[in-house]
Amino acid sequence: MNCLEERILKDGIVKEGNVLKVDSFLNHQMDIDLFNKMSKEWKKRFEGKNITKILTIEASGIGIACVAAQYFGVPVVFAKKAKSINLEGEMYTAEVESFTHKNKNQVIVSKKFLNENDHVLLIDDFLANGCALLGLIQIVQAAGATVEGIGIAVEKGFQSGGRIIRNLGYQLESLAIVEEMDWQTGEIIFREQ
Amino acid sequence: MNCLEERILKDGIVKEGNVLKVDSFLNHQMDIDLFNKMSKEWKKRFEGKNITKILTIEASGIGIACVAAQYFGVPVVFAKKAKSINLEGEMYTAEVESFTHKNKNQVIVSKKFLNENDHVLLIDDFLANGCALLGLIQIVQAAGATVEGIGIAVEKGFQSGGRIIRNLGYQLESLAIVEEMDWQTGEIIFREQ
Repeated sequence: MNCLEERILKDGIVKEGNVLKVDSFLNHQMDIDLFNKMSKEWKKRFEGKNITKILTIEASGIGIACVAAQYFGVPVVFAKKAKSINLEGEMYTAEVESFTHKNKNQVIVSKKFLNENDHVLLIDDFLANGCALLGLIQIVQAAGATVEGIGIAVEKGFQSGGRIIRNLGYQLESLAIVEEMDWQTGEIIFREQ
Repeated sequence: MNCLEERILKDGIVKEGNVLKVDSFLNHQMDIDLFNKMSKEWKKRFEGKNITKILTIEASGIGIACVAAQYFGVPVVFAKKAKSINLEGEMYTAEVESFTHKNKNQVIVSKKFLNENDHVLLIDDFLANGCALLGLIQIVQAAGATVEGIGIAVEKGFQSGGRIIRNLGYQLESLAIVEEMDWQTGEIIFREQ
């Protein structure tokens, strides 16, 4: 069992409706020591990959991506929810549906920050139905860049995102894959890795 | 001249309407080496302060705050724009008007993550009219916690936020204070620090 799985058992809370609350250490309050340990694990799992950039999506992927970037020595770009008057010029766009928020967002990345020479590591906190990741992959492809790998903190293994992404042939490294969880007993079972 | 001022002169772009674009290194693409240098400078400026937590606001403050947290050895909490079905229970709230986006957001912090024992360092990327910071200060005060200091990357010295915050008695450390900028010539003048 790795550091993230241990932490989920200790501080994660299962809620009705397939909700796993990890807001005390991952996506509201953020434990940066834990992020460093997770980043070291990704560095190991993506050893030998030529990574030039990390791409994530606002908001809760940003912190993890920035800590991870220190181990890969690359900049981070985050896909923004489209709304800013400061974002002008040409953009890559994708439509992303949020499982948590039950809404759709147009996300954008400036064409200045991704091009065909980039080898991209995607980082995000959660993988459920895979919509956010598929949006990021679409953006990388539109740039002519290469997805070298995908690092996820918590994958909900009982939802379809992980299977879809792996079937597309990507190296997807989820540090904790929740196979089953029960909001009535609070039990969480991880997939053996 | 510090590393951030140098970088702004090199890569910042002045646009009509008092807009300073720093999206190639600060708030869309993020240079994590630069964030580490900025964090070391804040660590020096807040030397001797007892900090227990860093508080920032989504989205572009998060990356800077997470890198800075490594120098203070504390967790980061970010104020969320209110919309999540996952955020239940009692929340501290504040209304924040965005200069960039010309809209108002309710921002929230779970009461679980701030209390009267916390000594808080506020971190954000930009300070213009001060609305975001005043919202964060309001949240810290509602928790009965103490604002120990405020670290800002870029302050627009010609807008009122910095003066308002300093007049309230807070130690505000902006790494670059833009005194004047001219979108027609591209000239940027920093306040001497």
